[in-house]
Amino acid sequence: MERIPSKSADLSEWYQAVCYQAELVSQAPVRGCLVLRPYGMGLWERLQSELDRRFKETGHENAYFPLLIPESLFAKEAEHVEGFAPEVAWVTEGGTEKLAERLAIRPTSEVIVGVMYAEWIQSYRDLPVLINQWVNVMRWEKRTRPFLRTAEFLWQEGHTAHATEAEAAEEVARMLEVYREVAEDICGVPVYTGEKSQSERFAGAEHTYSIEGLMPDGRALQSATSHELGQNFARTYDITYAAEDQTLQHCWTTSWGMSWRMLGALIMTHGDDRGLRIPPKMAPTEVVIVPIPRGDTSALDAAVRELYARCKAAGLRVKLDDRAGQSPGYKFNEWDLRGVPIRLEIGNRDLEAGVATLVRRDKAVKEDGQKQQVPLAEVVEFIPAVLEQIQHSLFAQAKTFLQDHTLATLDRAEFLRLLKGRAGMVDVPWCGLPECEAAVKDATGATTRNLRRPARAERCVPCGEPARWQAYFAQSY
Amino acid sequence: MERIPSKSADLSEWYQAVCYQAELVSQAPVRGCLVLRPYGMGLWERLQSELDRRFKETGHENAYFPLLIPESLFAKEAEHVEGFAPEVAWVTEGGTEKLAERLAIRPTSEVIVGVMYAEWIQSYRDLPVLINQWVNVMRWEKRTRPFLRTAEFLWQEGHTAHATEAEAAEEVARMLEVYREVAEDICGVPVYTGEKSQSERFAGAEHTYSIEGLMPDGRALQSATSHELGQNFARTYDITYAAEDQTLQHCWTTSWGMSWRMLGALIMTHGDDRGLRIPPKMAPTEVVIVPIPRGDTSALDAAVRELYARCKAAGLRVKLDDRAGQSPGYKFNEWDLRGVPIRLEIGNRDLEAGVATLVRRDKAVKEDGQKQQVPLAEVVEFIPAVLEQIQHSLFAQAKTFLQDHTLATLDRAEFLRLLKGRAGMVDVPWCGLPECEAAVKDATGATTRNLRRPARAERCVPCGEPARWQAYFAQSY
Repeated sequence: MERIPSKSADLSEWYQAVCYQAELVSQAPVRGCLVLRPYGMGLWERLQSELDRRFKETGHENAYFPLLIPESLFAKEAEHVEGFAPEVAWVTEGGTEKLAERLAIRPTSEVIVGVMYAEWIQSYRDLPVLINQWVNVMRWEKRTRPFLRTAEFLWQEGHTAHATEAEAAEEVARMLEVYREVAEDICGVPVYTGEKSQSERFAGAEHTYSIEGLMPDGRALQSATSHELGQNFARTYDITYAAEDQTLQHCWTTSWGMSWRMLGALIMTHGDDRGLRIPPKMAPTEVVIVPIPRGDTSALDAAVRELYARCKAAGLRVKLDDRAGQSPGYKFNEWDLRGVPIRLEIGNRDLEAGVATLVRRDKAVKEDGQKQQVPLAEVVEFIPAVLEQIQHSLFAQAKTFLQDHTLATLDRAEFLRLLKGRAGMVDVPWCGLPECEAAVKDATGATTRNLRRPARAERCVPCGEPARWQAYFAQSY
Repeated sequence: MERIPSKSADLSEWYQAVCYQAELVSQAPVRGCLVLRPYGMGLWERLQSELDRRFKETGHENAYFPLLIPESLFAKEAEHVEGFAPEVAWVTEGGTEKLAERLAIRPTSEVIVGVMYAEWIQSYRDLPVLINQWVNVMRWEKRTRPFLRTAEFLWQEGHTAHATEAEAAEEVARMLEVYREVAEDICGVPVYTGEKSQSERFAGAEHTYSIEGLMPDGRALQSATSHELGQNFARTYDITYAAEDQTLQHCWTTSWGMSWRMLGALIMTHGDDRGLRIPPKMAPTEVVIVPIPRGDTSALDAAVRELYARCKAAGLRVKLDDRAGQSPGYKFNEWDLRGVPIRLEIGNRDLEAGVATLVRRDKAVKEDGQKQQVPLAEVVEFIPAVLEQIQHSLFAQAKTFLQDHTLATLDRAEFLRLLKGRAGMVDVPWCGLPECEAAVKDATGATTRNLRRPARAERCVPCGEPARWQAYFAQSY
């Protein structure tokens, strides 16, 4: 196993090394594309199941819309196509035939969904329509960074249609809260929720809301978005309904999405110099059992198999690493790299004493509480509480980092200095004007991440105009 | 609600009408593509969860490989590309740029998986590799028939690599058995399992095995396949491993897939003139409660809500249809069309008598046992046994049909007559020669479906050459 670079020395190098060496992904022989390997898919499946359950609990159903969108349909919503056309991959040939019209591989599905909703929705009785889909999408990218920037990626996209603006706004807020909950309570990644500025809004939306985490290098990472599309798509694609009073009305539509980018946030937030640290609720493997054989191992073999069976029966996601060709030390490093929350070590002497050594991945080597001896008879009952503690401690560490790196200022020079130095989330009263945001971007590379409440001072810190919002500025991924 | 055509009068018309009117799918504004609507997705999600659980129990993990495959890689396996090139959709432009090389949208993923396995597999310790993926694939088709023939479809494809031919053969047989079990025990569709003939084999495989159902029009429907790829892909894509004796060996690889075509088999097999009949294990909704309100409904409203809550608490997939705008009769027809296995009706008089009327979808109208009164207090405990009975009765009906339409003959004239008349699966001793199969196809439109055991007579019924196999011939979808 190669050593991974130090996380604090070079986050980007560390990140790539961890993603490849922990076998989350492999580079594919296709520009900008990655293979999601079984361990990475294990993370994605955990995220999917947590999100999908919440989508269904909030009344949504899954569906599947086609991959390809004819150019003529795509081009109808002017603002939308302008935003997405530069990054579309086009199908122009099918079998041996040149196509009469180019077909876009979906970069997102508002267009095709809009066309179908126009057909499906007739009456107020058909509303709301609450649909989600789990799909691959494609945005032509030159650079590749696992989970953060790839030409093809996996995500879910929710698309809903409502009778009133108020209902659509409620939906958008509800799903943003689902995203916040999954980011914080499941992935252990603390985020700020708020509205995106006009420049950072989704192409074709009236309002875009986001969750934004802060990575260890002081750059923000947008991890999910939720959009009020107003009646824009409804007008373009003719999504109308007969109201109770028999008038014909346009629907109010929304869309919202979270992609495997969330996994990138999780990896960067929690990892350390030994590799991944995965919050237990997201861990494909919560517990790994590593026997330490010496001399006659027949009793030890039986004991670890019995322990493994008890963990399984208790519903734990557990692995027994009884590979013959590798030393225990090698295995410890490998499971540390893979970020498994709890390791149980058992040697012959432990077995005689009736104990196992429980090692927590959230603690540093030799930190208090990293290792403890637990009676073998009680270890399975003991584990859920420890997993709970690890979940909380990883979140708490990240939350402290976010709080320590959220900096409020009313001084323009300090504001610019903090942004240039990637000091974190810089919280200032802001005017809301696109030209002000563009000037800050030119000067520092930073933009607003999101806006969360009315300004707490009269003047915009960057430009001095009247302030409207309290905004988080930061450099971002 | 429009009436659907009679199933026996025109299966094809009936099938299309049911698929669209039961809201399983919609036509999309993209040639050859369909939208899978929430109810259709509900079926697919049931199938996915049944298959995925079995894949994991047999040691497989999920992963995700890229959608696009560069033409140069695709072209390496000559037989494979010859089979698939005529139906590939090609990406030739990305953003504003013409690509130097065409990229195929995967029609199947042996190629890209092969390239990655060559990278991942070094030593015998890395074997076996047992991976599955759930993805969309594309095969350029002009005609569209829901679930049976569409340009884009959803499926799973398993890809495994092994050290020995025997292990690969075992894997292929194991997954064929998983498919048989899911087809028969979950979807209630009886199938024949066996090997495909040389002409019907997967492009690039050494042996292909299939499960084949028989539709009510006497045509067979191939519902899943499992392939021994031998060392063909391993040689082309250089998938090698260092054996224990230090020699370099090529792997033996397999692939196996089931698509949403299985849903087409389920629909055609079980449906009747009133619409779908869904086996309970596949039903997105197992039970629908329809109140029959008259006069003061407050007591009835409370009772149905309480019943709904009890069904939910018992883990049943249940819906309460308390829509105000529709009559009970309209609702009965709609849920019949959608094939929900059990309907519970409750009116005010039932409520006074403390009963509900339980209606079974597997029985004809007014057939013995179609309706029965069940005490409200016991109905939830009563339902699982009825679901079990419905599951069995649908399978038994289909099994009887398959048996009645499996016809053995040793007479050539009768053989040809049965095939031309779409009499069903025609079971004959066969030589195994491609030219014999081609002649039968020319004469009747039928081909071998699969071969299951050594011939039970000396001579091939179609051509008189020495017989090797007992083969099922039929026209097919």
